[in-house]
Amino acid sequence: MDWERIVQELSFKTSSKIVLLVLDGLGGLPVQGKTELEAAQTPNLDRLAAKSACGLTDPVFMGITPGSGPAHLALFGYDPTKYILGRGILEALGSGVEVGKNDLVARGNFATLKDGLIIDRRAGRIPTSENKKLCQRLNNSLKSIEGTKIALFPGKEHRFVAKFTGEGLSEALSDADPQKENNPRVPVRALSQDASKTALIVNRFLDEVTDLLKSTPKTNTVLLRGFSHYPSLSTLRELYKLKPAAIANYPMYKGLAKLVGMEILETGENLSAIFETAEKYYKDYDFFYVHVKKTDSAGEDGDFEAKKDAIEEADSYIPRLVALQPDVLVVSSDHSTPSLLKTHSWHPNPFLLYSKTSFPDNVTRFSEKECCFGYLGRFQAMHAMPLMLAHAGKLKKFGA
Amino acid sequence: MDWERIVQELSFKTSSKIVLLVLDGLGGLPVQGKTELEAAQTPNLDRLAAKSACGLTDPVFMGITPGSGPAHLALFGYDPTKYILGRGILEALGSGVEVGKNDLVARGNFATLKDGLIIDRRAGRIPTSENKKLCQRLNNSLKSIEGTKIALFPGKEHRFVAKFTGEGLSEALSDADPQKENNPRVPVRALSQDASKTALIVNRFLDEVTDLLKSTPKTNTVLLRGFSHYPSLSTLRELYKLKPAAIANYPMYKGLAKLVGMEILETGENLSAIFETAEKYYKDYDFFYVHVKKTDSAGEDGDFEAKKDAIEEADSYIPRLVALQPDVLVVSSDHSTPSLLKTHSWHPNPFLLYSKTSFPDNVTRFSEKECCFGYLGRFQAMHAMPLMLAHAGKLKKFGA
Repeated sequence: MDWERIVQELSFKTSSKIVLLVLDGLGGLPVQGKTELEAAQTPNLDRLAAKSACGLTDPVFMGITPGSGPAHLALFGYDPTKYILGRGILEALGSGVEVGKNDLVARGNFATLKDGLIIDRRAGRIPTSENKKLCQRLNNSLKSIEGTKIALFPGKEHRFVAKFTGEGLSEALSDADPQKENNPRVPVRALSQDASKTALIVNRFLDEVTDLLKSTPKTNTVLLRGFSHYPSLSTLRELYKLKPAAIANYPMYKGLAKLVGMEILETGENLSAIFETAEKYYKDYDFFYVHVKKTDSAGEDGDFEAKKDAIEEADSYIPRLVALQPDVLVVSSDHSTPSLLKTHSWHPNPFLLYSKTSFPDNVTRFSEKECCFGYLGRFQAMHAMPLMLAHAGKLKKFGA
Repeated sequence: MDWERIVQELSFKTSSKIVLLVLDGLGGLPVQGKTELEAAQTPNLDRLAAKSACGLTDPVFMGITPGSGPAHLALFGYDPTKYILGRGILEALGSGVEVGKNDLVARGNFATLKDGLIIDRRAGRIPTSENKKLCQRLNNSLKSIEGTKIALFPGKEHRFVAKFTGEGLSEALSDADPQKENNPRVPVRALSQDASKTALIVNRFLDEVTDLLKSTPKTNTVLLRGFSHYPSLSTLRELYKLKPAAIANYPMYKGLAKLVGMEILETGENLSAIFETAEKYYKDYDFFYVHVKKTDSAGEDGDFEAKKDAIEEADSYIPRLVALQPDVLVVSSDHSTPSLLKTHSWHPNPFLLYSKTSFPDNVTRFSEKECCFGYLGRFQAMHAMPLMLAHAGKLKKFGA
């Protein structure tokens, strides 16, 4: 029996409440001897850590740098190597594109075609504003193909989401992307028999778009990859009998939360709105995923000070979460984003679990280095969910 | 998707370089309060540890004492519970016997047959010199059987490698070994239909050898087990896009390295030759497996002092490796060989990873005990490869 099945069978509904606070991209690497988290003043997190069990989590497994998709799935209790989300659906979630039962989505690039070869897979990273105009023009011009409607949703720079809406579309398609520059355009191929009609539709779309884009030589074709349907994951209610809510203000995280059956609570832009929302709806749900994005954005920008500030700001709201008296409060991250690297990394996440039944270890400072001495040790992030459920009294005994 | 497949798909070629230094059998148990590693003066390893991330690795999993085969496969990034190497091929690798596409090899024992019963499975552990003479005599006398040539290669004491060379030989054979003394000789059995011809050939060989050995009553028959072909593992180049080289001076390790597609660099007997070879070829490869055997041999001999000395000698060469400025330098072991136990053991290996992106923990002394406080925690050795690749910048992000 796999671990998910075991946890599912052991879990039962209770009134106890779990709060999972995700400080996105929290983990860092030392700059002048200290990480962002070490440099930050975090009296509230430290006080909490002193009463908590701490550890370090690997989002996927050692050495693997995760995207937000697998990193969050793991935190929500899904094996990230088992539930692989296509690029198309992740891009759609990240762009806030609604994806329904009859929709097939793909990640698109505007690209440059010359003398039959793709000479730039990103069309020189055109400005987002130009992308928007192109998508609008194409949406106005494109007609249904074999009863399938097509809509493009602009993303940043050269990126967009292509959504095909129709009956019986298949995601078993190869990418329409030569992967390397100076190769010819490639059509999609059907990867299973029942995908042949979809392949035909997508390839006609590609030809028509390329025809429509003749007048803009730099952005005169598109590439598509990661064809995907809305994935059918078991929800947290089905798996662990939770009534979960998400408080996040970026489309990607709202999308990921929706994927596992969370209710998305409307909230505002800043941290104070996020924690207010938690307070407002606290009585209505038994699992709260609270997402703070700034820590990651600052890391991606390589801005050590901004990341440190974001951590300090988040720290100042910890007493409000504690005041709600959740049965389990976890503070951790989906992945590390050291400002030194300006990108997601494979380094593990500091992890803190506070509950009446958590074992207080010697960690009195919430940091990467201190968490490595924690009682929870180093573990895969997907095991956080059974741990939270256990501490919330939501798991029966296994065997007699 | 399994982890190997994930790492394979994420890996890409770069010019960065990884050095994996294996101090064979490094881990020990305390004698008068200190392990060999603790008793040794290792200023260079300690200095390196202070700048590195440390941990402890389990070669296979907790409690499992590995042979050199699985222990090395794990370090090379192969799941040692998935790729099981037959005894025949390991014995052949260890004896430096070349094994080709049409070869089937088995581990052999000279044994004593009396009144139809095997009364000694090891023929009283005859001296190696006697073994050599017997093999030579048999090689001179044995004729081809059904077009299959047979050659015996003496090992230590009663051990040898039998190599059958012919078309279409199968490894699906049971052992020709009663396992317990005072049982009759057993022929091999075909374990699949297409192995029946091979079974016939091997059994004729066994009869002929037994006949030829009549004149030496103590060594008047042979036992064979672990029939195996040269295993077809994906190479490190195929899996992780590496151009790997091995610097080792024992046949077993050269054989294991060859198995995963490493180039075997010619080197000398002593440590200075080994590290010179690393320097000489440093520009030509991007992954170096450097093997030091003495630590293990001393442990096997139960010679605490000799093992301590071997560690100190290895330590003195660390600055030369560091001077090469590899992007990733790992110092660890394949398995522990406590001199207290005089044999391989299941105890985990001290592990140290040094790179620009490694998180320096509080470990300032490279030892079993200190490594258990390291940032890397305790992990399975097979995860060392993804970790090394990540730190060398050779892995893309997983998912979006």
